[in-house]
Amino acid sequence: MNISGEMIIGHRIVRGGAGTTHAVDPARKQQLEPAFGLATPDDLARACQLADDAVEPYRALPLEERARFLETIAQRILDLGPALIERASQESGLPAARLEGERGRTVNQLRLFAKVVRDGHFLEATLDSALPERTPPRPDLRMRKIPLGAVAVFGASNFPLAFSVAGGDTASALAAGCPVVVKAHNAHLGTSELVGKAVLQAALDCGLPEGVFSLLIGEGNQIGADLVGHPAIRAVGFTGSRAGGLALSRIASQRKEPIPVYAEMSSINPVYLLPGALEAGGAKLAGAFVDSLTMGVGQFCTNPGLVIGLAGVQFDAFRDAAAAALQLKPAGTMLSAGIHGAYEDAIDKRSGASGVKLVAQGSSDGPGCAARAALYQCDGAAFLADPALHDEIFGPVSLLVACRDQDELLAVTRHLEGQLTATVHAIDADHALAGALLPLLERKVGRILFNGFPTGVEVAYAMVHGGPFPATSDPRSTSVGATAIERFLRPVCYQDVPAGLLPEALKDGNPLGIARMVDGELKLA
Amino acid sequence: MNISGEMIIGHRIVRGGAGTTHAVDPARKQQLEPAFGLATPDDLARACQLADDAVEPYRALPLEERARFLETIAQRILDLGPALIERASQESGLPAARLEGERGRTVNQLRLFAKVVRDGHFLEATLDSALPERTPPRPDLRMRKIPLGAVAVFGASNFPLAFSVAGGDTASALAAGCPVVVKAHNAHLGTSELVGKAVLQAALDCGLPEGVFSLLIGEGNQIGADLVGHPAIRAVGFTGSRAGGLALSRIASQRKEPIPVYAEMSSINPVYLLPGALEAGGAKLAGAFVDSLTMGVGQFCTNPGLVIGLAGVQFDAFRDAAAAALQLKPAGTMLSAGIHGAYEDAIDKRSGASGVKLVAQGSSDGPGCAARAALYQCDGAAFLADPALHDEIFGPVSLLVACRDQDELLAVTRHLEGQLTATVHAIDADHALAGALLPLLERKVGRILFNGFPTGVEVAYAMVHGGPFPATSDPRSTSVGATAIERFLRPVCYQDVPAGLLPEALKDGNPLGIARMVDGELKLA
Repeated sequence: MNISGEMIIGHRIVRGGAGTTHAVDPARKQQLEPAFGLATPDDLARACQLADDAVEPYRALPLEERARFLETIAQRILDLGPALIERASQESGLPAARLEGERGRTVNQLRLFAKVVRDGHFLEATLDSALPERTPPRPDLRMRKIPLGAVAVFGASNFPLAFSVAGGDTASALAAGCPVVVKAHNAHLGTSELVGKAVLQAALDCGLPEGVFSLLIGEGNQIGADLVGHPAIRAVGFTGSRAGGLALSRIASQRKEPIPVYAEMSSINPVYLLPGALEAGGAKLAGAFVDSLTMGVGQFCTNPGLVIGLAGVQFDAFRDAAAAALQLKPAGTMLSAGIHGAYEDAIDKRSGASGVKLVAQGSSDGPGCAARAALYQCDGAAFLADPALHDEIFGPVSLLVACRDQDELLAVTRHLEGQLTATVHAIDADHALAGALLPLLERKVGRILFNGFPTGVEVAYAMVHGGPFPATSDPRSTSVGATAIERFLRPVCYQDVPAGLLPEALKDGNPLGIARMVDGELKLA
Repeated sequence: MNISGEMIIGHRIVRGGAGTTHAVDPARKQQLEPAFGLATPDDLARACQLADDAVEPYRALPLEERARFLETIAQRILDLGPALIERASQESGLPAARLEGERGRTVNQLRLFAKVVRDGHFLEATLDSALPERTPPRPDLRMRKIPLGAVAVFGASNFPLAFSVAGGDTASALAAGCPVVVKAHNAHLGTSELVGKAVLQAALDCGLPEGVFSLLIGEGNQIGADLVGHPAIRAVGFTGSRAGGLALSRIASQRKEPIPVYAEMSSINPVYLLPGALEAGGAKLAGAFVDSLTMGVGQFCTNPGLVIGLAGVQFDAFRDAAAAALQLKPAGTMLSAGIHGAYEDAIDKRSGASGVKLVAQGSSDGPGCAARAALYQCDGAAFLADPALHDEIFGPVSLLVACRDQDELLAVTRHLEGQLTATVHAIDADHALAGALLPLLERKVGRILFNGFPTGVEVAYAMVHGGPFPATSDPRSTSVGATAIERFLRPVCYQDVPAGLLPEALKDGNPLGIARMVDGELKLA
């Protein structure tokens, strides 16, 4: 499939008329062909209007057709073959193997949501029988979830497939029955076009109404503000910077009709090294930690940016082993010049922070947007004193915090902002301390993991990729995993609605064969 | 139990030192004794701090103890006996029978949440088995919901029991495992104190940690702003005016860490009279409509403030029958002088609105805060032209909208703001039009009911007392019914957490005996 520099508005592939932009190869700092046309305000309005028009016909489709659409998208993405991987690698600097894995994840995610849609459990169908003899009589009450309406999705730079045009936000919104308008990430415009055309092809294959999917290209903040401000848009999915997420949240809350924003923003993902675990295998842990830290040039939301332990010989040994491993890591190409520049600036600043010592750096700078990994250390008091040390630096950098004692370790924990993850390395002998830590961590993070590293976010039913502010703008949700669909639904109650007018999910006899709550008892299909 | 004019801060009954205020009998426009002491900033800070301190010990209690606490509150409220009803009636102008019904509803609501807590389904326990043989291996993943933390509750004036100190917001927050700080409504301070002391007594009976419940008294907007702005508060429940709800939402979104606000604000609850239903029983409908409109002096969130039908002889006959019934309705005492004044002003304004005709008024004004019911009429074009006609007037007033044809009726529907409810009166012959109306209504409202009236909100599993803005600030939720508990929860994922450190809800063997999602399949206990 050729890359033509065009957008998708409803069923049409169109060229934006508001100037042009190019994707850039970050390894060579060179523009990539072709030029992409930028959306005019009319393009945006048309995409939003078509999405609004599609709300009714799309949500009215049988669940089976919705599921098949998701599966067809997955197949159409696979059909793009190596051309997709090549372009994504050119645009992101990520190696082909990583992108092939990410494509698999993207496809599996679409298929998981197809299963979620078919199961119908997400509708949360609930029935309370009428009690006509009661005083006063109780009416017949039935409830199901319906889609919120059209959803705006902002793809992330660091997952050009899995968190972008047909990534988790799009898949979960489409699964919920919401049309989607994607704003393409400018760091991977060609990848976005390819995937966008695959989604369009799937929509045409499945005979879907026009407007279920559109893909817009634009530069600067205005297009995002216009999209989130458009009355047809009823929810927003975003993965990116704290500043970006906060700006969209502000716009959404100031609309005539405020809408929810699910922004996944900022996290430093503390890793706790408890004394027993350090003693039992600190050197091995150091190697695994450095691998996790530098994987994908540290460009993961769940990158381990903070390591917390008790000061002492064992922690020093871990530090030394990590330093040795880090020094061997080659510099890696970052996703874009902007991200690379921000990383370099932040590293400079951290190197000058009071009470913070540079422990080690990666082997050397490479060409283009290549970044050296870096490891810093401070003590608990310094960390508690300087809020800047809590800020995420996007890239392969981490800060070791050596706490005086367990009390200081717990104080540091209480002092943390909201996080996507917290990791605890512990052996049985550490369980008393781990037990004291757990309730604190539960209140700070979306996912707690033991004896592993937080990079790698499984797409599953029990996954939570979320957490308290500023990890996300809405801790009640996850952007990865089956329950991400809940973000785009709301309940409607039907009271004494005649049988012929009830939605299928709520009809007597359970024609959809779904799990339902009946008179307070959960009943399987 | 005496009313002493005091607040409850943790386990202590204390007198606020920042001046005094009085409750008022709206029927006589007379101050009621005693004087109530107003909270100082220190009182507020102490209540919030105690609530924060109580988060861990309270949520750590077994579900059975949490359920028993809710049931004990119910019993302690019943133990207050007729003194509670007398004071509530004095303060609200509502008749004793209505308040006895409301007390029953309040008690049943607490008991329903006790059952919800025991069932444990609200935890949404989810388990995905490890797949160690897979490449890469899949970790063991488990998820459950935990409470958000301390919740601020603002009681409503119009339900001094069911939407106040121990009302739906408090019951659902406590059920979720969240400590609660209530700001007493100044229209029923004595009622609040009595119920607050009942809750405190229940907390002491159950040996709960200090801070699970506090009750503050204050005047003006500052105390609300301070409460919502306090870092210990992690969510807000509010029932009241649009201006009040929006102000609290603004404060919450501008905090360093924004928090969710569940504000139930404004709704005019359209009632559709479809042609067949009008022809079959318009006169009977008119009587039932006027009863619903004037019940409780129209002071319900779900009051039928808008009636929509097709212009013609049948609609005129309905109007005339409603006018006749309305004229017989005596004036009723409103909840407070402020509410009464706002009602009178709004009625004056509506009487002067372009294209709007006064159809009928209730029998006559009475003493004190007594309000005459009123019925207006306009055509579809006038309604579409004047946004002020969409505004809620809190009280016994409704607007009949006579539409030219079905297209105009659907246009009026599309033009509506978000609503708590929509009601459709229809017989079989109306089902084609009802079928066209239903998908539009689903996108506008939280509850759709047929052949009844919207006043009366059943506390059940399938109830939705919510809806799109401005009915509420968050259409994804309900403030009445079992699923109201979901507002105060968020998910946490546990990855490879050692068996001994897992929460009970997620342990192998399902020791709590609750419904869980296991490898994508829902399993009953």
